[in-house]
Amino acid sequence: MSAASVLVATPQSMHFAEALPLRSGASIRAYDLSYETYGELNADKSNAVLICHALNASHHVAGVYVDERGEVIPKSEGWWDSMIGPDKPVDTKRFFVIGVNNLGSCFGSTGPMQINPDTNEIYGADFPVVTVQDWVSAQARLLDALGIQTLAAVMGGSLGGMQALAWTLQYPERVRHAVVVASAPNLTAENIAFNEVARRAIVTDPDFHGGHFYQHGVLPKRGLRIARMIGHITYLSDDVMNEKFGRQLRRAVTETATEGAPFRYTTQDIEFEIESYLRYQGDKFSEYFDANTYLLITRALDYFDPASAFGGNLSRALAQATAKFLLVSFTTDWRFSPARSREIVKALLDNQRDVSYAEIDAPHGHDAFLLDDDRYMGVVRSYFQSKVAA
Amino acid sequence: MSAASVLVATPQSMHFAEALPLRSGASIRAYDLSYETYGELNADKSNAVLICHALNASHHVAGVYVDERGEVIPKSEGWWDSMIGPDKPVDTKRFFVIGVNNLGSCFGSTGPMQINPDTNEIYGADFPVVTVQDWVSAQARLLDALGIQTLAAVMGGSLGGMQALAWTLQYPERVRHAVVVASAPNLTAENIAFNEVARRAIVTDPDFHGGHFYQHGVLPKRGLRIARMIGHITYLSDDVMNEKFGRQLRRAVTETATEGAPFRYTTQDIEFEIESYLRYQGDKFSEYFDANTYLLITRALDYFDPASAFGGNLSRALAQATAKFLLVSFTTDWRFSPARSREIVKALLDNQRDVSYAEIDAPHGHDAFLLDDDRYMGVVRSYFQSKVAA
Repeated sequence: MSAASVLVATPQSMHFAEALPLRSGASIRAYDLSYETYGELNADKSNAVLICHALNASHHVAGVYVDERGEVIPKSEGWWDSMIGPDKPVDTKRFFVIGVNNLGSCFGSTGPMQINPDTNEIYGADFPVVTVQDWVSAQARLLDALGIQTLAAVMGGSLGGMQALAWTLQYPERVRHAVVVASAPNLTAENIAFNEVARRAIVTDPDFHGGHFYQHGVLPKRGLRIARMIGHITYLSDDVMNEKFGRQLRRAVTETATEGAPFRYTTQDIEFEIESYLRYQGDKFSEYFDANTYLLITRALDYFDPASAFGGNLSRALAQATAKFLLVSFTTDWRFSPARSREIVKALLDNQRDVSYAEIDAPHGHDAFLLDDDRYMGVVRSYFQSKVAA
Repeated sequence: MSAASVLVATPQSMHFAEALPLRSGASIRAYDLSYETYGELNADKSNAVLICHALNASHHVAGVYVDERGEVIPKSEGWWDSMIGPDKPVDTKRFFVIGVNNLGSCFGSTGPMQINPDTNEIYGADFPVVTVQDWVSAQARLLDALGIQTLAAVMGGSLGGMQALAWTLQYPERVRHAVVVASAPNLTAENIAFNEVARRAIVTDPDFHGGHFYQHGVLPKRGLRIARMIGHITYLSDDVMNEKFGRQLRRAVTETATEGAPFRYTTQDIEFEIESYLRYQGDKFSEYFDANTYLLITRALDYFDPASAFGGNLSRALAQATAKFLLVSFTTDWRFSPARSREIVKALLDNQRDVSYAEIDAPHGHDAFLLDDDRYMGVVRSYFQSKVAA
């Protein structure tokens, strides 16, 4: 396919020489942020939309990559390509959209896989613990460097939605609109529990070496696989799993089955399609994701809790926010259920803020925020057309 | 404490010299079953109640153990001691109650930790795959040996409930009542997915050695810990986790916290109480549970599906059952939700069977079936008094 008709993305990098103080008390001396932009910044720099990513995503939000001959690289679409692009709900003909890879991630921004300038060794487990607030601070510096004072909107799903919410609290004067999708004001005990099991799987993998596996020439793939499998279960709904996989046996199983004995009767080999799917997801993930990044990002999720500084009172916490809000949740999302979004809506209404809220009836669970659902896309499109662009 | 006033349990063992043919086509040449009995078998042998256990339990259902001086051993209560005993819902003054450890388990009955008589080596991963139906066949032989033709009731929770249901299909003429608590007619894709992640954690532990770790003098504790942590999350409800742990920080964390920095900012150490709790559960479990047994029992769960031989039609499958039924489910159980129990109720009603059903409003999730809830205990007590003893 020729790239003429599609949005072509070009990753960029920005260096920051000034140390970034972190919430933990530590700081990052110098760092780089990978980012991409789509569309054109207008003359008064009022049409910028910042997209914040979730656990395993990156700055490559929209568009495709092309090879040296100008041909589109297959499957190189950005992770929110259904949402962002020309004539899409977040229309890049109208908005200047910025995707940025967070500090501590593993897709180009400074993170555990890179050299610690203080020691000239790979950071590994020594990379400082970063929080949602730290990411927002780093993103704000990127906007400074791009000459953008005020965002038309900040937007994200899941952990990205937490960053959007944090923006409205840390830099209320710099955000006109916040779009918070499939998110929550903090993690529940169950959310933390799933994160903790995933972290234990990684940390107790003998190839983890206390987080300094890079020097040993190994990767804790076993742990990463388990972490991803656990995560994946929580991203899907019970319904969509039953619909897609149910109790369906893997083809190889049904082909070799003898009459009256539908199974292979094995504890270690695959019997059911769902097993095959999960193993594939785990294997794929373990090939490209950094184990220390997984620990850092799940911890950032655990720590996020804007209400904690206000005795647990979310309404008081959100009093600082002056942006207008769109919140979206999905009925079958049991990771960040609609009730969690409604907590945010209520706290904003308690402060007489301008809030739109859509609860989308979608079967896909938490993953729905990444999918191309008509009603969901329609709600975001309307919001950007009627409110953000107004 | 003296044992005079309490029910004292005495584990027994029964040897079976005749090979047991298994569903898989394999067979177990000879085997032992550990069991316990409470109360007295009446003259016409009509008051026997068989209790079937779930994933990690055993034949030690009720009562306590005493040491050689006759003193009660602390914390030696059976796993369903709140349910079974003198004057308890299943009253051992009236009923002769039998607990039996299933084949393939690790509490005395023949299983992967024992010697394979064919090879004189520890079974390990070579222990044949067993199904719920195989367990029922083995339990039936134990009843034969005890001279019991007909059970007043067969009863179990979770996987134990599946065995109770299977009893009514395999030996309809031998069961007067079936009490099926917090169970399901089969696993959903999500249930299988959680089992599969747990199994992968065990199998990919380098200390697993393909299931022959006994010869290597190691135990795959890392994998068992992860498996148990995952399981534990699914046993509890989101609500009860929030109530018990919420976002509460571990005491050590709050004590060392500095003003404005409530956390220790660490990815590998414990911050939240829920993490501490899960790690403790995982550690404890990995000390006593056999890894091959975990694989076998989760597979038995995966395979159970009485409707599959009837084109997925549960009503047709349950037409074979002639017992009277009590089904109990718990509102916050998301592992085997009330809807799954209602599927069984509906299928039995389609066959004009005598069915009682109680949906207990309890906050504890799947674990509720093991807890001492007044309404739950009351329902079982009434059923045994008014129906089973009638």
